[in-house]
Amino acid sequence: MTTKASAEAVAISSAIQQKDVSDPLRHLKARFHVPEGLIYLAGNSLGPAPVAVFDDIETTLRQEWADGLIRSWNTAGWFSLVDRLGDRIGALTGAGAGQTVVCDSVSVNVYKALHAGLSLRPGRTTIVAEAGSFPTDLYVTEGVVAGRPDIALRLEGVDGDTIESLIDERTAVVLINHVDYKTGRLRDMAALNRVIHKAGAVAVWDLCHSAGIYPVELDSTGTDLAVGCTYKYLNCGPGAPAFIYAAARHHAQMRQPLSGWWGHAAPFAFEGGYRPDSSIRRLLCGTQPILSLRALDAGLTAIEDVDMTDIRAKSLAMSDLFMALVEDTCRQHGATIATPREHHLRGSQVSISFADGYPVIQALIARQVIGDFRAPDMMRFGLAPAYMSFADVYRAAQAFNDVMASGIWRSPQFTTRRAVT
Amino acid sequence: MTTKASAEAVAISSAIQQKDVSDPLRHLKARFHVPEGLIYLAGNSLGPAPVAVFDDIETTLRQEWADGLIRSWNTAGWFSLVDRLGDRIGALTGAGAGQTVVCDSVSVNVYKALHAGLSLRPGRTTIVAEAGSFPTDLYVTEGVVAGRPDIALRLEGVDGDTIESLIDERTAVVLINHVDYKTGRLRDMAALNRVIHKAGAVAVWDLCHSAGIYPVELDSTGTDLAVGCTYKYLNCGPGAPAFIYAAARHHAQMRQPLSGWWGHAAPFAFEGGYRPDSSIRRLLCGTQPILSLRALDAGLTAIEDVDMTDIRAKSLAMSDLFMALVEDTCRQHGATIATPREHHLRGSQVSISFADGYPVIQALIARQVIGDFRAPDMMRFGLAPAYMSFADVYRAAQAFNDVMASGIWRSPQFTTRRAVT
Repeated sequence: MTTKASAEAVAISSAIQQKDVSDPLRHLKARFHVPEGLIYLAGNSLGPAPVAVFDDIETTLRQEWADGLIRSWNTAGWFSLVDRLGDRIGALTGAGAGQTVVCDSVSVNVYKALHAGLSLRPGRTTIVAEAGSFPTDLYVTEGVVAGRPDIALRLEGVDGDTIESLIDERTAVVLINHVDYKTGRLRDMAALNRVIHKAGAVAVWDLCHSAGIYPVELDSTGTDLAVGCTYKYLNCGPGAPAFIYAAARHHAQMRQPLSGWWGHAAPFAFEGGYRPDSSIRRLLCGTQPILSLRALDAGLTAIEDVDMTDIRAKSLAMSDLFMALVEDTCRQHGATIATPREHHLRGSQVSISFADGYPVIQALIARQVIGDFRAPDMMRFGLAPAYMSFADVYRAAQAFNDVMASGIWRSPQFTTRRAVT
Repeated sequence: MTTKASAEAVAISSAIQQKDVSDPLRHLKARFHVPEGLIYLAGNSLGPAPVAVFDDIETTLRQEWADGLIRSWNTAGWFSLVDRLGDRIGALTGAGAGQTVVCDSVSVNVYKALHAGLSLRPGRTTIVAEAGSFPTDLYVTEGVVAGRPDIALRLEGVDGDTIESLIDERTAVVLINHVDYKTGRLRDMAALNRVIHKAGAVAVWDLCHSAGIYPVELDSTGTDLAVGCTYKYLNCGPGAPAFIYAAARHHAQMRQPLSGWWGHAAPFAFEGGYRPDSSIRRLLCGTQPILSLRALDAGLTAIEDVDMTDIRAKSLAMSDLFMALVEDTCRQHGATIATPREHHLRGSQVSISFADGYPVIQALIARQVIGDFRAPDMMRFGLAPAYMSFADVYRAAQAFNDVMASGIWRSPQFTTRRAVT
């Protein structure tokens, strides 16, 4: 590093310290366990543990399960967790009460949401989605379409350049990723909903990369259905149950084929025939995993007293900073910042495409800077305002610049692939 | 109580003490946390906590999630839990390795299993099931049939008196509860599979009330598909993920529509199109709830070193004893033991039908004897050899006899209904 660069680094660092001092969210970091010395930029894949979760799960195990046993379905309110937690996620995503439940996986909920959407638009013949979707959304859509010979799938990036160009009077459902998992590009929910509704179709939004990090406005944008996960920016634990939203105006009419007992109007009456609940609960299916579900309380509590617009402002400031700090290095090494620079087009991650992205991420992990990689060439750095400081962003960028400049990522210890990243 | 009856009670109690002394499974009780003074007969609804689960979940929370973070998908083997735990459940249910995965809820797995079965018998036109099924099995079957106008549902108890009478050359799939959730009646898996296969159909067994308590023989009876839960006699925690089995001979051909990324041949290649894994993993869909999934290890470890035939022998001895102790009382009060007396027709619960069963169960719970109730009139007493002694069975029966004889269940504190039992 030259003397000039060092001086600049010190100068930047000082300005950054000031950002942290004046950060209105700086008190949140104490609510999360981030290991000493680690800079964690993979919260867009798995958020860190909220410190309250340890006691909560201890209580769930020892008091609720071990001592309460079957009685805890009543006394500990296990059966209503799906609604109560759902409403709290609703409050974080602009949804009024009674329109969100927590259950199952995102994939299973995409399946339900697509079917629910199709049930609202009988006679229409297409589902529109993005070829660049998170893959499971498309895989599940394939599964839906395979069982519905009357429905064709039309893909942005295959059948048309823009999603808008594929939406017409044949369209039943449009499935959209709010923030692209690879590039971090943000969609305009209100504007796209207007296009979708003008064509008479139903919008299903995947909020996996926006819930908890962006002021999602499900109700006021007129969204019909949405799904999302709780283990990324909601910090609710590995594989924690997902959520599904449906606007109240659709509850009476919508149907979905995973008609298990938790979606029944009277689940404990043990009636012979299925009679869907009149509420959002008709999107439930079977019994939910209580240990994982109970971990949601700590994750939601850790951020729900904060104004989401403050989260958004810090998120943008952090990603602005990170991009500014790494852009010279990217240019020098032929890496490309894939995330849009415009605020209104960006979620809360910075993605850098680079053919050798995999070993670069491994070299960063060895330096305690945890990002992740998505095949074939995308390095992803999630910037989470709740537990990251601007100093963390600075140190992460410095580590990235060092690893790229030194070429240490070419070492075999970093180039050997593992099954899951 | 008369002097004669007291003397009999003492005599029975002494004989029972001898049963416990010579019980080859008596060492298992220490592996479970059953609250002091409680007699727990609801293990057919939610099994008690294995003592090892507290440390296991603490490790999962603190070491794997909080410290390991995203790295734990590799380093803690989270991604392969579904297979590794599946094989262990396979070992407990007579299934060779590579044919069972742990995932989702029973309801979701019934949906997958029915579709997988239909995919193996194209052109056939009926699903046969029991009108007395656990309701979610039927509700989900309705959901499948609603999406398949070519398939009709034929119900034992509605369309014919016996399930065998409904199985013919039109039958694609037969869905059977191995042990009836209400009466505790056991089906003959081998014999029914022969009938099903003779007709060219596919058998789907629901093992919720037999896995962990009965020597299920999936492979040797030629079973095609099976599902089951892990929170009853496998003692893996409230709402713990379920399992699904498919015989290896069907893997290449079977299809199911919940085609999420965990079922993809290369889930982390992020390919555009769905390509099902060649193995049992094609029955997976989305990301699994790791906290709940990790609790399975303790539950399985607690019983997998025991011979299932010893479990079965003790189970039958316990239910014989319980029925012998309560039959006079039942007769006197117009209650009926609904569970078959014949060993080959019985699972591991004793069910007693009684119009006022609900308050009787509440009165027993108030006496620390926990059974459960299923509408409209069934009291269920699950007898679990792993953590119950013959003395427990005796005390439970005495409590039942006392409650029935005293009429204390008529008190308003017991007759008031709660939402979930």
